[in-house]
Amino acid sequence: MAVGTTTEHVTLARRAARLATTRPAPEPADVISLGSGHGFPGVFPDLTEMAQKALTTFRPETLQYGIALGMPEMRSWIAGYMKENGLDVSADNVLVVNGAKHGLDLICRLLLDEGDSVVVTAPTYFTCIPIFKTFGVDFIEVSQDAEGLVVSELSDTLERRKRAGQSMPKLIYDVPDYHNPSGVTMSSERREALVELADAQGIYIVEDSPYRRVRFDGEQEPMVKLFDRGDTVFVLGTFSKLVAPGLRIGWVVTSKEMVARLSYLKSDAGSCPLTQRIIVEFCKAGLLPAHTKLVQDTYRKHRDAMVDALRRELPEISFTVPRGGYYLWLTLPPGIDSDKLAERGLQEKVGIISGTKFFAGPGPKGTGAPKNYIRVCYSHATLEEINESIQRLARAMRSMNR
Amino acid sequence: MAVGTTTEHVTLARRAARLATTRPAPEPADVISLGSGHGFPGVFPDLTEMAQKALTTFRPETLQYGIALGMPEMRSWIAGYMKENGLDVSADNVLVVNGAKHGLDLICRLLLDEGDSVVVTAPTYFTCIPIFKTFGVDFIEVSQDAEGLVVSELSDTLERRKRAGQSMPKLIYDVPDYHNPSGVTMSSERREALVELADAQGIYIVEDSPYRRVRFDGEQEPMVKLFDRGDTVFVLGTFSKLVAPGLRIGWVVTSKEMVARLSYLKSDAGSCPLTQRIIVEFCKAGLLPAHTKLVQDTYRKHRDAMVDALRRELPEISFTVPRGGYYLWLTLPPGIDSDKLAERGLQEKVGIISGTKFFAGPGPKGTGAPKNYIRVCYSHATLEEINESIQRLARAMRSMNR
Repeated sequence: MAVGTTTEHVTLARRAARLATTRPAPEPADVISLGSGHGFPGVFPDLTEMAQKALTTFRPETLQYGIALGMPEMRSWIAGYMKENGLDVSADNVLVVNGAKHGLDLICRLLLDEGDSVVVTAPTYFTCIPIFKTFGVDFIEVSQDAEGLVVSELSDTLERRKRAGQSMPKLIYDVPDYHNPSGVTMSSERREALVELADAQGIYIVEDSPYRRVRFDGEQEPMVKLFDRGDTVFVLGTFSKLVAPGLRIGWVVTSKEMVARLSYLKSDAGSCPLTQRIIVEFCKAGLLPAHTKLVQDTYRKHRDAMVDALRRELPEISFTVPRGGYYLWLTLPPGIDSDKLAERGLQEKVGIISGTKFFAGPGPKGTGAPKNYIRVCYSHATLEEINESIQRLARAMRSMNR
Repeated sequence: MAVGTTTEHVTLARRAARLATTRPAPEPADVISLGSGHGFPGVFPDLTEMAQKALTTFRPETLQYGIALGMPEMRSWIAGYMKENGLDVSADNVLVVNGAKHGLDLICRLLLDEGDSVVVTAPTYFTCIPIFKTFGVDFIEVSQDAEGLVVSELSDTLERRKRAGQSMPKLIYDVPDYHNPSGVTMSSERREALVELADAQGIYIVEDSPYRRVRFDGEQEPMVKLFDRGDTVFVLGTFSKLVAPGLRIGWVVTSKEMVARLSYLKSDAGSCPLTQRIIVEFCKAGLLPAHTKLVQDTYRKHRDAMVDALRRELPEISFTVPRGGYYLWLTLPPGIDSDKLAERGLQEKVGIISGTKFFAGPGPKGTGAPKNYIRVCYSHATLEEINESIQRLARAMRSMNR
């Protein structure tokens, strides 16, 4: 699909059929998967006590239909948690959703029409691409550098579109903290500039920040939302990366009015009250700070193990060490095609994702998705598996025709 | 919106804003609510043991991301459950979703484009209306009689549309068992005729059957899906009405190909594995048959209590006694406006829903939603509350200017 143009009118049915050919096949069981951003089972908390309480004391609540907006105690707790970032929000600003992806989907349903365009980084989060595609939008891709999304490039692109009589994009999607897949954290100056630009052009921003507390070292940048003087920024949050993905509870932070409008688009009769109650009890018991420390310590060790293994086994690969999150974004040496490496990797029983999957279109320069990147995830595998998997990756790479 | 015509192109944003004005306000705490189809807390099962097992033995599974299609054991169990209706299905035909409404939403996303039309009964299920509306479709309303959806009327309507050069609807939505709100169960002959008509015209059917096992007396009719020789019928099922709404787990039964296509439109990274495991353990322990009997016995008593109270307190109201489900659909005596009665009811501390809310458009005859019906739900209130609430309803009605 050409950037910034709407050339085809396809039905959702045909769009879904097209998407149906793009999902990667499941990996065999003996493969060490560095592909998906699964949590490490060793850090999943013991929630038995909270579940017991949820299903006895709170049974009439947890087994009944919930409220579309979310459980009041859950919304209040999330508001407090967001306030730790300096945000001026209350429970009214919080919508509980079935994971952050569900929040993104609802925002798309509220804002997007077929033929609209959205701004994404190149590369961008793998899974946001099919979600946006089901809404029939075009992508405007913007480069990233060491400070994150290059706001000046986006500004130039928008100016060019204006001069050409093209419509403005409806929203800008980014993962500013420990970006998935690039690992980059956006600088404070860039965040401020991005909000200013979006504000001036009347474009919404979606600040997707699942990894913000999965921080290993370095200072934390202010949230993009902190620079928001109006209702420009939607924040997406989740318990998936910090507590457990299986609970399927995330949130959207926006204005009270937008929360109400998004809630009308929820077709789920309210997110699961049982899992909300389990999380509320976990958080109210004051267990999250210590658990966050455990998560940080565990994934820091995983990151370090993978960084060490890569430097030892594959010194020809370059990368920037991320200060948080789940992923390393690797630049392959010349002559190695990432799609082919992913295939060869599977033969050596290691699952990686080719960088080409993280580009929503032909890239900001229109030259096509680059074939010299792969994403590897260090969260899910054990330290031993991380070592073994990088050795397998090295074998895969060395076996390829250069 | 005129039936069968697409006169306006509205953005999803504006559509959502329009919907935002139609949700009923929450009822005060001292109101006895006969409005929503909530479950009776007294029949919610004890799931503590299953949750304990789910969060210990199965912790690496239940707290991890699930599979978009659903947990394999859950899909197999649902397939077996569906086979009890004579359907020839396997786990491949089952998609696990976050409640049946979520399933309907996914089917809409797959099939519908703005300007399409869908067939619904008049009256139809309250909550399907806003879901369909967010997709920008028009409604074709069809009457119901004692045998359910009047297939001959639909056939005539389709013929008339054809002659007028209008497009065929994309799908037919119905609740054939203990219809919500009318309580009518569709006859076997009608079911067969409906599938034949839909097949001949290339229209999909959504058979939404949450109350099928909430059966009090009478024979069970064959599922609409049983007459399906191709892939005409999508079945929606749920654990909400039989086990507990709070678990938020339902299913879609369709062809393997459609299951795959619907799963790509799920933005939830798989329905909650924790609640799926709890349900699987409950079902595998063989507890569902006895629990179903308890649910049937409980709600039969609730229905009988409400029928008795109505006959005693409000003999001027007429209704057909449903043989299952959660609702009574009451015909008001001449001169009583259902919208006004709902308002007066609140003053007397009883919550009912005006029948006007159950009409998607101006009715099959185009004469507007009739104002002489209300829906009352007997599932949620206690027997004492049922008696008290009908006395309140009688006071409300008697206080109205005739």
